[in-house]
Amino acid sequence: MPTISVEHQLIPAKRVNGSAVYNQAHEKIGRIEDIAIDKRTGKVAYAILSFGGFLGLGEKFHPLPWSVLTYSERDDGYIVPITEELLALAPKLDVSELSGWDDTESRDDFYTYYGAYGAKPYW
Amino acid sequence: MPTISVEHQLIPAKRVNGSAVYNQAHEKIGRIEDIAIDKRTGKVAYAILSFGGFLGLGEKFHPLPWSVLTYSERDDGYIVPITEELLALAPKLDVSELSGWDDTESRDDFYTYYGAYGAKPYW
Repeated sequence: MPTISVEHQLIPAKRVNGSAVYNQAHEKIGRIEDIAIDKRTGKVAYAILSFGGFLGLGEKFHPLPWSVLTYSERDDGYIVPITEELLALAPKLDVSELSGWDDTESRDDFYTYYGAYGAKPYW
Repeated sequence: MPTISVEHQLIPAKRVNGSAVYNQAHEKIGRIEDIAIDKRTGKVAYAILSFGGFLGLGEKFHPLPWSVLTYSERDDGYIVPITEELLALAPKLDVSELSGWDDTESRDDFYTYYGAYGAKPYW
């Protein structure tokens, strides 16, 4: 089982970015490109996952609710309780939309999809 | 007065990092080197401010509670309601301590110091 290091409860964003993401079988399925923060509340709204190849024109990001990720010391990365196949079916985001992203129209879609995997609304 | 863009309520961590920090007279006093995230709750605990020269051996970071920062579109950066002189007197952190930082012993110091400037505990 993944465990959370209680000695180090804080982590710098630069260390989160680039971290590997694994499924529950500890197979690497992608990596975290960035995290999206709610300016007003200071809560991490999403970890922005890339997977299935290099990012290019028309490539999509997969925003994952932070509450779906569990840090695993064993893997030195994050575990998600979802398969790559189901991730591929999840709502996506264009790379070009990420900077200054407004999710008020789409957050219900993201959080409904991941609700079955433990996502709790950040707002 | 600084305003928050309601169109863009989410901001990627990579855009926060490197942002300029200003005092209330809109004078640049430093920049954000990184943000420290509480792994368990997904809340931004601190913006890590550098100021007064380049980071080198023995240089100190200034962790600022996120709730003390206000995003300013006019300045394309963050405003803090504190002078450079009072920042210099605030609790500091060694650069070497940042990665995997445990603030359970020190967070009361930081949040008490910045309490007068509107800091609200993240925990």
